[in-house]
Amino acid sequence: MNGRGLDAIDRLVDLLSKLPGIGKKSAGRLAYHLLDADPGYSRMLAGELASLHSVIRRCSRCGSYTESDPCAICSDPGRDASIICVVERPQDIRVIEESREFRGRFHVLGGLIAPLDGVGPDNLTIGQLLSRIRGEGVKEAILALNPTVEGDTTALYIGKLLKDTDVEVTRLASGLPVGGDLEYTDRLTLSRSFRGRVKV
Amino acid sequence: MNGRGLDAIDRLVDLLSKLPGIGKKSAGRLAYHLLDADPGYSRMLAGELASLHSVIRRCSRCGSYTESDPCAICSDPGRDASIICVVERPQDIRVIEESREFRGRFHVLGGLIAPLDGVGPDNLTIGQLLSRIRGEGVKEAILALNPTVEGDTTALYIGKLLKDTDVEVTRLASGLPVGGDLEYTDRLTLSRSFRGRVKV
Repeated sequence: MNGRGLDAIDRLVDLLSKLPGIGKKSAGRLAYHLLDADPGYSRMLAGELASLHSVIRRCSRCGSYTESDPCAICSDPGRDASIICVVERPQDIRVIEESREFRGRFHVLGGLIAPLDGVGPDNLTIGQLLSRIRGEGVKEAILALNPTVEGDTTALYIGKLLKDTDVEVTRLASGLPVGGDLEYTDRLTLSRSFRGRVKV
Repeated sequence: MNGRGLDAIDRLVDLLSKLPGIGKKSAGRLAYHLLDADPGYSRMLAGELASLHSVIRRCSRCGSYTESDPCAICSDPGRDASIICVVERPQDIRVIEESREFRGRFHVLGGLIAPLDGVGPDNLTIGQLLSRIRGEGVKEAILALNPTVEGDTTALYIGKLLKDTDVEVTRLASGLPVGGDLEYTDRLTLSRSFRGRVKV
C-alpha cells in the first residue's frame, strides 16, 4: 500500500480478507488490531493454525473432525448406539451437542444432494451410513438436515433407501422459531408449522 | 465441547473469538472454514502471524508501522516535508494514502487526549511532533483527528502549543458525508457543515 514499508501488513490483510464474512476493511481492522495487541496472541494463533490440519483429522466412523480416531462421541460407551443423527457437516454436530438434546451417535454426510451443483448421492457418505445402520444395530435415524430443497431431497432419498428396513427414519420438526413472530414468518415455514402442529 | 475430540478446534475458536467483531458463532464458522479449506492457506496465515511482530516495527520518525525504519513515507524524498498530517493511529495513514489526497508526511499520536480514560498529553507523541515540526521545517500541520470530543480536545491542545509559532494548524473539514442524506444527518454534523460552508 504505502510503498515497500507495509508489505507484511498487506499480505496479512490479503489473507484475512479471504475468510468468509471478512471484507477488505474488516481484514485491515483485524491486522492492525493484531499489531496493537500482545505479540503472544499472534504467536498462539499462528501455532494453532500451523498445527490445525495435522492435529485434526476425520473420524473414520462418523466423518466428524477429531483429534483421536474414532472420535470422542463414537468411542463413548455412554452414547446410545441405537439412534443415529445424520447431519450435513461436522459443525452441525457442535450445534446439536450444545443443545444437549441428543445422546445418540452422529453421521456426517459431507454435503446434500444438489444436482445443479453436481452433487449426487455417490458424493456423500450415504453408503457408509447404510453399513453403519446395519452393523451398529441402529433403530432410528434422525435426519437433522437443513429445511431447504437440498435438505428435503436428501432426506427423501435416504428415507426411500431405508423404507423396507425396520429402521425408523425421522426428520427435525420445521416451524416457527422459538421467540419468533408469526407476522414475520415466511409462507413456507408457516405452512410447515401448520402441517406439523402438535397437541397442547 | 464434544469431549476430548475437539480440543484443538475449541482452542482455535476461543482464540478467534477474541478478535474484535468476531463472536463465538463467527469464530466457529471461521474455524470450520479453515478445516474445510486448503491446509496451505492455514499454514500461510500461520506464517504471517508468527513473523508479524518481528517483521513490523514502529517507524522511529512518524510512529507508523513499517518493515524498514524510517518508513517508506518518511524516507521518500518525493514527499513534501513542509506539511505534516497528524493522525491518531497508524491505520489512519492507510485510509488517507488510499484517498491519494495528501503528499506530505505523517505523524502518529498514538491516541487522543481522554482524561476519563487516563490519557493525557504526556501519553501521546506530542513532544516528538513539536521537535519534528521544528527540525523538519514544517509549515502546516493538518490535524486529521476524528470529529469526536477527544479529537476536538487534542486538536485544541496542539493548536494552543503551536499558536505563537508560524506553523499553520488546520483540521479536516467536518460536515455531510458525500452521498449522505440531509434528513438522516445528526444535529452536530449539520451544525458543523453550516459553520464550515464553502462558496459554490
